[in-house]
Amino acid sequence: MGAVPLIALLTDFGVSDGYPGVMKGVILGIAPATPLVDLTHEIARQDVRAGAWVLHTAWRYFPEGSVFLCVVDPGVGSARRPNALRAGGRVFVGPDNGLFSYILAECADEQSDAHAVTLANPRYFAARPSDTFHGRDIFAPAAAWLAAGVAFEELGPALPVEALVRLDLPQPTWQGDTLIARCTHIDHFGNILTNIGGALAQAILNNPEVRVSIAGHSITAHAHTFAEGPESDVFLYVDSSGYLALAQRNGSAQVALALPTTSIYEEMLAIAGIEHLREGES
Amino acid sequence: MGAVPLIALLTDFGVSDGYPGVMKGVILGIAPATPLVDLTHEIARQDVRAGAWVLHTAWRYFPEGSVFLCVVDPGVGSARRPNALRAGGRVFVGPDNGLFSYILAECADEQSDAHAVTLANPRYFAARPSDTFHGRDIFAPAAAWLAAGVAFEELGPALPVEALVRLDLPQPTWQGDTLIARCTHIDHFGNILTNIGGALAQAILNNPEVRVSIAGHSITAHAHTFAEGPESDVFLYVDSSGYLALAQRNGSAQVALALPTTSIYEEMLAIAGIEHLREGES
Amino acid sequence: MGAVPLIALLTDFGVSDGYPGVMKGVILGIAPATPLVDLTHEIARQDVRAGAWVLHTAWRYFPEGSVFLCVVDPGVGSARRPNALRAGGRVFVGPDNGLFSYILAECADEQSDAHAVTLANPRYFAARPSDTFHGRDIFAPAAAWLAAGVAFEELGPALPVEALVRLDLPQPTWQGDTLIARCTHIDHFGNILTNIGGALAQAILNNPEVRVSIAGHSITAHAHTFAEGPESDVFLYVDSSGYLALAQRNGSAQVALALPTTSIYEEMLAIAGIEHLREGES
Repeated sequence: MGAVPLIALLTDFGVSDGYPGVMKGVILGIAPATPLVDLTHEIARQDVRAGAWVLHTAWRYFPEGSVFLCVVDPGVGSARRPNALRAGGRVFVGPDNGLFSYILAECADEQSDAHAVTLANPRYFAARPSDTFHGRDIFAPAAAWLAAGVAFEELGPALPVEALVRLDLPQPTWQGDTLIARCTHIDHFGNILTNIGGALAQAILNNPEVRVSIAGHSITAHAHTFAEGPESDVFLYVDSSGYLALAQRNGSAQVALALPTTSIYEEMLAIAGIEHLREGES
Repeated sequence: MGAVPLIALLTDFGVSDGYPGVMKGVILGIAPATPLVDLTHEIARQDVRAGAWVLHTAWRYFPEGSVFLCVVDPGVGSARRPNALRAGGRVFVGPDNGLFSYILAECADEQSDAHAVTLANPRYFAARPSDTFHGRDIFAPAAAWLAAGVAFEELGPALPVEALVRLDLPQPTWQGDTLIARCTHIDHFGNILTNIGGALAQAILNNPEVRVSIAGHSITAHAHTFAEGPESDVFLYVDSSGYLALAQRNGSAQVALALPTTSIYEEMLAIAGIEHLREGES
Repeated sequence: MGAVPLIALLTDFGVSDGYPGVMKGVILGIAPATPLVDLTHEIARQDVRAGAWVLHTAWRYFPEGSVFLCVVDPGVGSARRPNALRAGGRVFVGPDNGLFSYILAECADEQSDAHAVTLANPRYFAARPSDTFHGRDIFAPAAAWLAAGVAFEELGPALPVEALVRLDLPQPTWQGDTLIARCTHIDHFGNILTNIGGALAQAILNNPEVRVSIAGHSITAHAHTFAEGPESDVFLYVDSSGYLALAQRNGSAQVALALPTTSIYEEMLAIAGIEHLREGES
């Protein structure tokens, strides 16, 4: 993709204090011609799991060679390691706290050529790194030096990919004939995403008998597009991320179902009427 | 303006889920050196009219050759056409739902060289376009390929500009000696814009007798700058967009007048004391 | 840092109306290859002091030669001067209303080579500047022409740096054995920053006897990192900006102390138990 890879930024910093801007200033001081893309700075504060999800649904759409600078870092300054991970043709720079769990599940379990290093070479740090803003003083410089052509291995000693922190990523499970799934994300439109992806998501959507129970509501409508959905009922669809999801046309499924906007991961869905799909899955 | 045109993005996606970032990843995978500008991602959800207004007030400030990637798309995946429009020296890519109504009114009615195509050439789509995120899978690639030098006509078959969907754009109308106008936008500062532009807006501002009725309030103060306005009353001015508008110094006219923040287009203004201006207009 | 300096933008415009995007369109029409960085567009409306603070904590992290385009401008169109200031190896463009107070305090008091001009050369304005959006019509063009290589002195007549408007920047003061300080900023995480910086901030943090009174609360805990802080009490730390600050782990110090989110500058802190530090300071 040309000589200079882009750097994509994902943080929980918000934009009001200038923290993402400062990281960009640092980057462009090191690697002036680097294209910079904000993936998001609106991850819920310190919500590593939420950051991991957004990164999961986004990274494949960036060109090979892209560097992801990811900072959701409640443990900044503590013993948690600052890392870089090379996997799936991209590089991911950030704290070792589970932020790259989906990347590892997708790319590092298939005997891929995933590699990791600990960011330990002070040559690629700010002059006097602070204890509370490694995004500015350690992670942004690392990403910038990579963009400037420094070899991945230069950043610090190799770390076995198996040693990286991974979040528990719950999979849908069968309880008798019912599939028990979890919510994973609520988006800007109030659409509710689940952890049912791939062929199973499609098979469920194509099943006219499907019946979803969530938060005391029962949902049976389904559609392939928002415009196809019923006028006012929450309906099932497969999101552009490939996951089964719930939406309300001209409204918010999150509001309609009165789901909380935080810790959505706790929320369960029970999916019935799809017992014939069990064979292929279990 | 140099070899690589910029792409400006306007959506209702918000920034928390990474949707705009993903579109940029797609663009830079196709056209790596493209300058990207966020016009806004905070158009009210699915509010095509609001997107059309912001685009209207902004597009002329971008260099000729700029590509606008505009996605406010409640009908994504339905029969509504994905289009590109070349008009006013720029290119506008997005759904055919009225988002380009002002551009068409400004540029395509004067026997200009406006042209449109339907985005129908799958060569310039993502490999397997989703049904729910054409911003990522159809519109962003189209904008990127244009930036990369693909000819406009390559994107799909020509479409008569007259066939494009246009919103009804209400014009101010005289009822006897009173001019009836509409609100068009409320900005970040609570300033209220109207659909009275051009010479008429200036003439009204320069008229000491003018009296505006809106939402049960009567407004007679006017000023050329915010600093000139009265300390605590709402006052008339001509906005930097060229439209007559209402502001409150050190405050919000929207709050002062207790206007709703959504569907502002329904709100009427009655303007009296300017009957001598009627001649030139009617 | 290469041929083309970056332009960093700081405003109180928000992003919903496209105002920052329009400024970028203007810039890229004049200086097409300029890297653009959003420092922030979320300064509280018309809060010059808040803009000055964010700029203060950020500017040193941008490469030398960077141009800062800063627009928090309640006096737009009035007699307040539009200026450019060259100081600290960067250029700052914006209204003369105190926005550059910290820059002046840091860079222009040490007989440095700081220089200022009034933006008065219409050659570097938009064709017909509006009265209410100098960001678009005067400041963005000035920044862009600088990035395009126009000499600083070309923009208008020199202005003595001493003549620029400066906000009163309160310093911590001793009242007997108690140090009286002020709040300066509340960040996205609810961390509360003060005006105690430098060696004094570090000395206070390292003092086990320190006792801070603020808004009726007494704070004695301290930590070097967030992870080190107590589970549920507000604690003292030195922020990455170098200033003494208050945080709550997994929470917001602003919420815990019930501080207002606006006019935070009024809020006082009384710091006791550090009388031995007085010698070196007074």
